[in-house]
Amino acid sequence: MEEYIVRPIGVVRSALKDPADAPKQGALTGQEAEIVVDPAYLPALDGLDRGKGKIIVICWMHRADRGRLKVHPQGREELPERGVFSTRSPHRPNPVSLHTVTLLSIEGSVLHVRGMDAIDGTPVVDIKNHSPELDG
Amino acid sequence: MEEYIVRPIGVVRSALKDPADAPKQGALTGQEAEIVVDPAYLPALDGLDRGKGKIIVICWMHRADRGRLKVHPQGREELPERGVFSTRSPHRPNPVSLHTVTLLSIEGSVLHVRGMDAIDGTPVVDIKNHSPELDG
Repeated sequence: MEEYIVRPIGVVRSALKDPADAPKQGALTGQEAEIVVDPAYLPALDGLDRGKGKIIVICWMHRADRGRLKVHPQGREELPERGVFSTRSPHRPNPVSLHTVTLLSIEGSVLHVRGMDAIDGTPVVDIKNHSPELDG
Repeated sequence: MEEYIVRPIGVVRSALKDPADAPKQGALTGQEAEIVVDPAYLPALDGLDRGKGKIIVICWMHRADRGRLKVHPQGREELPERGVFSTRSPHRPNPVSLHTVTLLSIEGSVLHVRGMDAIDGTPVVDIKNHSPELDG
């Protein structure tokens, strides 16, 4: 099958510096972070702040193991291994991650968000508005 | 910034053959489709059917215009243009799409799903379990 090239549009800036620090499914912890978008994409952010505060940030988990097809869920070795497609593990053939976060503010092309568990330096590949109808 | 290569793990098989046929945000229409996963990834599907029936399918919208930064929401020209990151338009720098669908059954490495608006032939890049806590 044909391959495609992902060109990051921004990067995560966070106090979480290491995967070991990142809470599993840390969306639930309220971690704040910045999404620093390349200013070239500033027009694409227009209207993002008109929603009810939730947006979806899609990252490329650049440290993931793309060859891993089974994992212990939540990294807990006492749980039996399952296929990566039935989990939210970063390890998967195309390590795309979804983060439904709260948009706190936008300054220029920098988004301040809450509920972001990706570590500092993670490439950002897309941003979408969140829709309870489509995503809930 | 560094670039990354997406290698599709499967393809959508659907009665929707053309973007013009695809309902906008057609997750709401109950369209049924097959997600035909490359059998090489069969182990990664293990456990997918243990959930409550909702999964997230991530596709690469291979016909999208990656240079478009603003669009009329839902393709409706009477609505003022907005930045693509504040919409669910397929047109965006990295045309990754999210589809929260109902998993009806799995036969081998073929998933039967309901609520899928991607057209026939769309490359699939990832599958995740849906979590009301993380995604709702």
